Amino acid sequence: MDPYVIEMNGSGDHPSVLDVHVNVGGRSSTPGKVKGRKARWSVKPSDMANNTFNPIRAIVDSMKVKPNPDKTMISLSIGKGDPTVFGNLPTDPEVTQAMKDALDSGKYNGYAPSIGYLSSREEVASYYHCPEAPLEAKDVILTSGCSQAIELCLTVLANPGQNILVPRPGFSLYRTLAESMGIEVKLYNLLPEKSWEIDLKQLESLIDEKTACLIVNNPSNPCGSVFSRSHLQKILAVAARQCVPILADEIYGDMVFSGSKFEPLATLSSNVPILSCGGLAKRWLVPGWRLGWILIHDRRDIFGNEIRDGLVKLSQRILGPCTIVQGALKSILRRTPQEFYHDTLSFLKSNADLCYGALAAIPGLRPVRPSGAMYLMVEIEMEHFPEFENDVEFTERLVAEQSVHCLPATCFEYPNFFRVVITVPEVMMLEACSRIQEFCEQHYHCAEGSPEECDK
Amino acid sequence: MDPYVIEMNGSGDHPSVLDVHVNVGGRSSTPGKVKGRKARWSVKPSDMANNTFNPIRAIVDSMKVKPNPDKTMISLSIGKGDPTVFGNLPTDPEVTQAMKDALDSGKYNGYAPSIGYLSSREEVASYYHCPEAPLEAKDVILTSGCSQAIELCLTVLANPGQNILVPRPGFSLYRTLAESMGIEVKLYNLLPEKSWEIDLKQLESLIDEKTACLIVNNPSNPCGSVFSRSHLQKILAVAARQCVPILADEIYGDMVFSGSKFEPLATLSSNVPILSCGGLAKRWLVPGWRLGWILIHDRRDIFGNEIRDGLVKLSQRILGPCTIVQGALKSILRRTPQEFYHDTLSFLKSNADLCYGALAAIPGLRPVRPSGAMYLMVEIEMEHFPEFENDVEFTERLVAEQSVHCLPATCFEYPNFFRVVITVPEVMMLEACSRIQEFCEQHYHCAEGSPEECDK
Ligand SMILES: Cc1ncc(COP(=O)(O)O)c(C=O)c1O
Ligand SMILES: Cc1ncc(COP(=O)(O)O)c(C=O)c1O
Repeated sequence: MDPYVIEMNGSGDHPSVLDVHVNVGGRSSTPGKVKGRKARWSVKPSDMANNTFNPIRAIVDSMKVKPNPDKTMISLSIGKGDPTVFGNLPTDPEVTQAMKDALDSGKYNGYAPSIGYLSSREEVASYYHCPEAPLEAKDVILTSGCSQAIELCLTVLANPGQNILVPRPGFSLYRTLAESMGIEVKLYNLLPEKSWEIDLKQLESLIDEKTACLIVNNPSNPCGSVFSRSHLQKILAVAARQCVPILADEIYGDMVFSGSKFEPLATLSSNVPILSCGGLAKRWLVPGWRLGWILIHDRRDIFGNEIRDGLVKLSQRILGPCTIVQGALKSILRRTPQEFYHDTLSFLKSNADLCYGALAAIPGLRPVRPSGAMYLMVEIEMEHFPEFENDVEFTERLVAEQSVHCLPATCFEYPNFFRVVITVPEVMMLEACSRIQEFCEQHYHCAEGSPEECDK
Repeated sequence: MDPYVIEMNGSGDHPSVLDVHVNVGGRSSTPGKVKGRKARWSVKPSDMANNTFNPIRAIVDSMKVKPNPDKTMISLSIGKGDPTVFGNLPTDPEVTQAMKDALDSGKYNGYAPSIGYLSSREEVASYYHCPEAPLEAKDVILTSGCSQAIELCLTVLANPGQNILVPRPGFSLYRTLAESMGIEVKLYNLLPEKSWEIDLKQLESLIDEKTACLIVNNPSNPCGSVFSRSHLQKILAVAARQCVPILADEIYGDMVFSGSKFEPLATLSSNVPILSCGGLAKRWLVPGWRLGWILIHDRRDIFGNEIRDGLVKLSQRILGPCTIVQGALKSILRRTPQEFYHDTLSFLKSNADLCYGALAAIPGLRPVRPSGAMYLMVEIEMEHFPEFENDVEFTERLVAEQSVHCLPATCFEYPNFFRVVITVPEVMMLEACSRIQEFCEQHYHCAEGSPEECDK
């Protein structure tokens, strides 16, 4: 037998492709005359690329104002909530040392399993394990940041044409990912007057037969809010009643200020299947390292092996996060001192208090006091700023006149608010607040036809 | 105005979603009576998850044989071509040092731009820049491994329903990714008797109006082949004639043995738009670090801004590779000593020669001599092994009897071959070859009705 005539029958797996397209002789086509193809260049991006839309980029990039050249720029915006840009919040030396040890060991240069090393998954499982929500290595999938964790969860749970429930205001990635995949986004409301709790009735009214999952982000970006146990139980009750699985975005888990308590959603339910997404980015202050995870909570076996296998298969597309960070995980989780977490949080809380106090005193602004994460939302009483059409214009002019940049909350689908990032050094925070005050004083007008007194 | 009645008209971007689903009163639905939804649990994986199929996993996992307990296991298979598993191919100390320096600087913990730091992209651009194929930072996108580079390229170039041209035998990820996205795979043949050159006529005959791109993998996994300049020019001629852009998977670029030369595809064409995918995984022996890149070659402006923007937008979904590795890139590219590359390649070549020599002497096997990468393909003359139905059975029994594991080339859609990974230490390579010899001698039969002499 000629050694190079390849028999196709052994390959079996994809018979249609093999059968249809193999053309062993290859003599059928004359160069330049290929069936139906016009030989001219036309390379267009796919629908998915076209439909991948980042509202923060779109809004911020279209804000083409220049800062005031007489004032140094202070950015309270950082689109992706990067706690490291000011240099005042370094990670702990133990975290860096853990990476060096992983490098020196020489054991973490090769491929890990696509869902992560077993030993690293064991560490994450035992770190987050608790009696009410037990976890083993098989319940953990390591990902390239919390972003990929969210991407994998949405991809496994929803088909194009289905919908997901997303908080408003909320982190823009949910919509960016969903729309690129043809998944519809339905927005449920968070209520600022109730410390950003969910409008549960409205949430429930959005659920229909095409609802694939409910995203709950707690603690919240952009609100800095932390749900109470009883509110979380009510959310779980809706999910249980409507049989909707939950994607819990808990990337700010444990990042709550003294006086508040973070309750992992999965610890409060034994029947709702929950995919909890988290990672090193925020709490360990290393967002660039791209180490995230999915914790699978499924005590009633509703996800079952199918969803687990689906996540494993999807992880094989790009093969998990950097192995050095995976190798360092054990030490990072075990050896980061409590003071590090404590110091980060007391810094954030003191900055939050400072910012809240300063902005609450400014006529026309209504900040909402945060309890965790690294953000604070501020309402603009637009009727007192008739010069500006909306939050985008307000924040645009704030840059032009005061060189202070805040993200307009339209980025989070929540007009007439802006978001302040509270990770900046204290002096910058103070300076920014006093510039915001000057700005507001210059543009504040008594509301027309308003009965209230205007003391300006 | 009540401060917490949120006005929707300012958000603008997604009016239909806002208009349709917001239900401010939230009084419409009675708990438990949601429109059209049956309240019972049914959570199924999406079509995309179901359609994400890794043939290597499927085939290897279904090979349920136990190794021979009397012989230590030797794996010449490692599905993902991991050069590090035997400990004999460590990366260079400069590479590790570069990572430590990046860690110590404290400058690389935050988020990078989603396509990578400008400075890191500049380094990659200048490393691969050459007069025939100039590159600047704007032509480089950093990714989470070459796998994500390939994923982004396929995603930006092809819509569901289009097709891509993929080598047979070839790396299985191309099909895994394409099928999960609803992109059809058309296989073009590589010809072992011509050192695995492409059957160009057959290739061209596959092109139709739905062809979105041609994947060229050089040097090749699994063949270890390296295309000559003139063959590459012929491939480019087909692409130019048919106006098909090329995805050049050059992850084994520069990994060629003395006597061969690696020519980056883009250096040979000024008119075919090429996305070249590469990374640190193979040449720097750190596949776990997940640092890959896309080099955009588009001197005729055929991709234009649209494809570039599409790639940028897609990169925002999961935000690029680990920043520590990005921070180390400059030193890795500049300071890794030439001897490191040279030593790796001479080790691989000597192992390849050893393996080729040993297997070529075994009746019933026909190895194909490799010129680069880290693999060698071996044909099984199946007519001489009538006990085995195909390469899967052959390699299965090789494990059961000799504890030697090779990947059946059915994993690469190429039945009746198997693939040997040549990164194992020399003694293991020799021992494996002698066991393969024993195995073949025990199972070799003269072909029935064959005129040739059988000297067994
Ligand atoms: C709510 C929320 N989820 C997820 C992420 C993404 O985290 P990562 O950087 O780990 O991808 C962020 C980042 O800001 C976030 O705010
Ligand atoms: C041909 C080919 N392309 C791409 C890859 C993936 O490389 P990475 O590990 O950088 O994702 C591999 C890995 O084995 C490969 O063989």
